[in-house]
Amino acid sequence: MSELGDRVSRRRLLAAGGAAGVGAVSAVGLESARRAGAFRPDPDADRWAHGRDTVAFHGPRQAGVGTTPQAFASFVGLDLHAGATRDTVRRLLTVLSDDAAALTQGRAPLGDQEPWLAQNPSRLTVTFGFGPRVLALVAGDLRPDWLRPLPRFSVDRLEDRWSGGDLLLQICAEDRLTVSHAQRMLFKDARSTTAVRWIQEGFRHTVGSTASGGSMRNLFGQVDGTVNPAPGTEEFERVVYGRGGCPAWVEDGTALVLRRIAMDLDTWDEVDTPAREDSVGRRLTDGAPLTGSSEHEEPDFAAKGPLGFPVIAGYAHIRRSRTGNPPEQIHRRAYNYDVPGAGVPGAAGDVGLLFASYQADVDRQFVPIQQRLDELDMLNTWTTPVGSAVFAVPPGCTEGGFVGDVLFDA
Amino acid sequence: MSELGDRVSRRRLLAAGGAAGVGAVSAVGLESARRAGAFRPDPDADRWAHGRDTVAFHGPRQAGVGTTPQAFASFVGLDLHAGATRDTVRRLLTVLSDDAAALTQGRAPLGDQEPWLAQNPSRLTVTFGFGPRVLALVAGDLRPDWLRPLPRFSVDRLEDRWSGGDLLLQICAEDRLTVSHAQRMLFKDARSTTAVRWIQEGFRHTVGSTASGGSMRNLFGQVDGTVNPAPGTEEFERVVYGRGGCPAWVEDGTALVLRRIAMDLDTWDEVDTPAREDSVGRRLTDGAPLTGSSEHEEPDFAAKGPLGFPVIAGYAHIRRSRTGNPPEQIHRRAYNYDVPGAGVPGAAGDVGLLFASYQADVDRQFVPIQQRLDELDMLNTWTTPVGSAVFAVPPGCTEGGFVGDVLFDA
Ligand code: HEM
Ligand code: HEM
Repeated sequence: MSELGDRVSRRRLLAAGGAAGVGAVSAVGLESARRAGAFRPDPDADRWAHGRDTVAFHGPRQAGVGTTPQAFASFVGLDLHAGATRDTVRRLLTVLSDDAAALTQGRAPLGDQEPWLAQNPSRLTVTFGFGPRVLALVAGDLRPDWLRPLPRFSVDRLEDRWSGGDLLLQICAEDRLTVSHAQRMLFKDARSTTAVRWIQEGFRHTVGSTASGGSMRNLFGQVDGTVNPAPGTEEFERVVYGRGGCPAWVEDGTALVLRRIAMDLDTWDEVDTPAREDSVGRRLTDGAPLTGSSEHEEPDFAAKGPLGFPVIAGYAHIRRSRTGNPPEQIHRRAYNYDVPGAGVPGAAGDVGLLFASYQADVDRQFVPIQQRLDELDMLNTWTTPVGSAVFAVPPGCTEGGFVGDVLFDA
Repeated sequence: MSELGDRVSRRRLLAAGGAAGVGAVSAVGLESARRAGAFRPDPDADRWAHGRDTVAFHGPRQAGVGTTPQAFASFVGLDLHAGATRDTVRRLLTVLSDDAAALTQGRAPLGDQEPWLAQNPSRLTVTFGFGPRVLALVAGDLRPDWLRPLPRFSVDRLEDRWSGGDLLLQICAEDRLTVSHAQRMLFKDARSTTAVRWIQEGFRHTVGSTASGGSMRNLFGQVDGTVNPAPGTEEFERVVYGRGGCPAWVEDGTALVLRRIAMDLDTWDEVDTPAREDSVGRRLTDGAPLTGSSEHEEPDFAAKGPLGFPVIAGYAHIRRSRTGNPPEQIHRRAYNYDVPGAGVPGAAGDVGLLFASYQADVDRQFVPIQQRLDELDMLNTWTTPVGSAVFAVPPGCTEGGFVGDVLFDA
């Protein structure tokens, strides 16, 4: 123990002894009493309380995929140290799963020195994704074709520092502090075998700050997430878990594509509102399609204006990203990012979307959409993909197990 | 207008014409209908709704000082371009005040291209602070002695990139997206005359994530903010606005000291809980003083343990930061920061406290406390000030006016 440790440990004994006999006598001055009295708990606190809300960690599927998106996300890409073996990965997954199982339920994991920061899980979820290297070590046979970098798209300006990675942790919660603490706990247990490759932090509206019913606004001001297979539906089962569609690489497993897409707010702002609405095919006010009057109304892609042009343009993002071909669908779970860059005179900052997309088969579902958008999508004028990563998302685990254990046993 | 602008403007006309005749016919497939049907608004949304809550912008004093701290803060330091005059500053303050007046009330300011992002102010406040250069231009006579860099403290490891600045904007709201948008709007109007020197983002618990009644937890896991003059009390009036104490530099004005203090979580975690409690003089569980049993109980600094040592150590942070000398008090309004640093193997990240302190007179209130802490404070073992800035916070303004106008007129 260090000298400091020694000194404070000695004091601890004394303090503990002292604390036992306290409470009765206390020298309270007038000023201090007023000070103490000035404390007023928020009478409305209960109305808002959601800090103790939890999302189950154990189950056939991992949480954080079909979970209603929490306000904050930290996507972390870890790289295994050179020489890592199957056993290294097993130990790593075991300890990280234990941590996540505790943290998500509001319990401090083993070795948590700030257990008080674990008390409010605020719907914390921790979702694991396997990059090619981890999956090869764990279950070489199972490795799906699509588990590799995406094909190059002409719009891409990818940077290494936002791309790739051996192991993904997607950490989400309604409370930013909860994310911070959970991330640190997981890092502590990962640091002997991995290095942090990147951390990408995102946010959506805070709980209660908007009553818009689920769809967030992105930093272009657009209602984002309107047309998205909803958990609990057959469509979601097919799109995300391959039931009755493209089969998943493993039962109850899925795939995550994470694209970091920079948004140029400066040039976006140079275009007027109707033109910006035109680029997507939806109204900015409420996200309604240009052929309709409310967000969740079905767009009419066949509708023509008086001059015979389609109301929803040929280059509109919602036309280009949709197809009549059922397999070509994805489940989006995106977050905004806004990273301050000091010293950039008047710059809008580094702003964009952490475009996270879940689907059973990356090649058959995500790639064709991205290919179409690469060929033509008016939104490309103001957006640039700067990061890209693909992960196989393994099934969940039961109590006492760890994420990925079914693959080891297979 | 650019070629693109031209193209989309033409389309806009068509789209507008088309949109008028829509709604009746719509090609809704089975799948699409299910898709639309899958949308379920959150039945609990109202229980949490706080997005429309506003804090008044106009008034004799600026908001954001005595305002219950919102969950998110962005502290922005701007530098005037060379050659800026009194008139430059007047114009800048006029337009920024107009922006802030609108944004804080949930209205889009002039030129806002994403007005939808202004709809949920979520208790947004924008607080202006003047650095030496701005105050000299505005009201050279008034310039208080303390409006200069703080004296050097031995614990300081200050970096230029987190220090100084001509104009401060403290932007706070319960919603992270609101802060992002407000900041961008203010930048747009500031960019012709200023450059961003630094942006420091902080967070506290999200509304509703904790029922702890006001005091936040910092990233050491400590209950932080317990003993703090409460708005509405005589003590607050004296400490922050100099009523009956150190006089403020101008009526209804105050001063902000912003210190960026890095916290070393790795070494902090090496010390056990009782020792860490000892370093502050309070319990980690609930923030109670080591001589008491609840957070807001008055600490008994005279209490001794069985061996005759004080229960609250001589080096404890709460003993060192308090004095019997009434002027030496401050109002703290701190935020946590946690900035991801990629590529740092297993590092805890850049983590700490944006220590924001309001007081009428920096030299007579803040400096003596910081001096005592510089001499002895066990917390120094794990904390390092890396940024420092001092701002004069002018009075508020009435409708139609701008922050600082009373100084121009004086
Ligand atoms: C920064 C980049 C992007 C922005 C700002 C953006 C924005 C939007 C917006 C506003 C909508 C309409 C509302 C909605 O249904 O959510 C939308 C729809 C959609 N987007 Fe994107 N998007 C981006 C990138 C992408 C990418 C990279 C893909 C896939 C490769 C994609 C796929 C989709 C799909 C599938 C839809 C639903 C289309 C439908 O069936 O109606 N988006 N996006
Ligand atoms: C990272 C750095 C710091 C940390 C983690 C920290 C933490 C704490 C904690 C846990 C408390 C006890 C609870 C409370 O009353 O809030 C406290 C009290 C206090 N701190 Fe700090 N503090 C830091 C820096 C500072 C600095 C730089 C100052 C002023 C120069 C300061 C001034 C005070 C004061 C005045 C009190 C109240 C003391 C009393 O009268 O009981 N702190 N701080």
